Amino acid sequence: MKRNLPGPLYDATVLKNTYSGQNCSIAGALELVGERWTLLILRDAFLGTRRFDEFQSSLSVARNVLQTRLERLVDAGILRRERYQERPERFEYRLTRKGADLWPVIVALLKWGDTYAAPNGPPVVIRHAGCGGEIDDRRICMKCGKHLEAHEARPEPGPGALAA
Amino acid sequence: MKRNLPGPLYDATVLKNTYSGQNCSIAGALELVGERWTLLILRDAFLGTRRFDEFQSSLSVARNVLQTRLERLVDAGILRRERYQERPERFEYRLTRKGADLWPVIVALLKWGDTYAAPNGPPVVIRHAGCGGEIDDRRICMKCGKHLEAHEARPEPGPGALAA
Repeated sequence: MKRNLPGPLYDATVLKNTYSGQNCSIAGALELVGERWTLLILRDAFLGTRRFDEFQSSLSVARNVLQTRLERLVDAGILRRERYQERPERFEYRLTRKGADLWPVIVALLKWGDTYAAPNGPPVVIRHAGCGGEIDDRRICMKCGKHLEAHEARPEPGPGALAA
Repeated sequence: MKRNLPGPLYDATVLKNTYSGQNCSIAGALELVGERWTLLILRDAFLGTRRFDEFQSSLSVARNVLQTRLERLVDAGILRRERYQERPERFEYRLTRKGADLWPVIVALLKWGDTYAAPNGPPVVIRHAGCGGEIDDRRICMKCGKHLEAHEARPEPGPGALAA
């Protein structure tokens, strides 16, 4: 279970090879998304956040930390940086396909957190946009049975949101 | 999306409330399992690792870091510490139900890592123990269609294991 070489996918990033002794896809995934704040940045990206100030306001994280995390996600090919205004130049961050493919990780963390770390009930409920059914922890619509992809899902405030 | 109070589930742990401004199940989950090494410890637990020295040997992590992580997982109710020998006293760490329920997170990270962070192919393949089919990223057997739980799955070395 040891990895010999970082391999081409790692060379493309500036990330420190945190778990370099591990020949393991989970370790490989965590090298790219396992830093503090990174998965919350991606959560926000799935909720539609695109601009630096929006991420900053949602996360209340130090701006330099946020900047570093965003740059690493861009270098890893998980977010892409796109100019949306010319003068002054302004950029926004959007999920790439590689980033969008992290949706199962986000949903799995959310569902476990709903059960074990949401004392007031789920703050967010994810529904199938097509029929309004809730999704289960396999990302299957509990109403119509469709196996959902991220673009077919819609988050909305859940019972736990009222407590805030 | 802000959380007012840590809530009873947090009070039961000694974990620092890393993302305390976030009323979010994902943030809540990451407070419990988002520290460096924690998810790799849990990966090993799912692979059957139980003893301190086995974790240490698999992870090559500093013993004091491993000790702290294991203690926090016990405090969080994710692992339980059980004595398996009396003289001298020796303990092993086993997943609780709360810990076993993290299987979807582990599988989601593994599947994403297989795609994007396993240049030599998946180091580990998870199969349905009952029929031998591979599981997909919804934890459904690709051969017989069964919706699998952790205890029905069996890891085996994949193509990427040979590269090590």
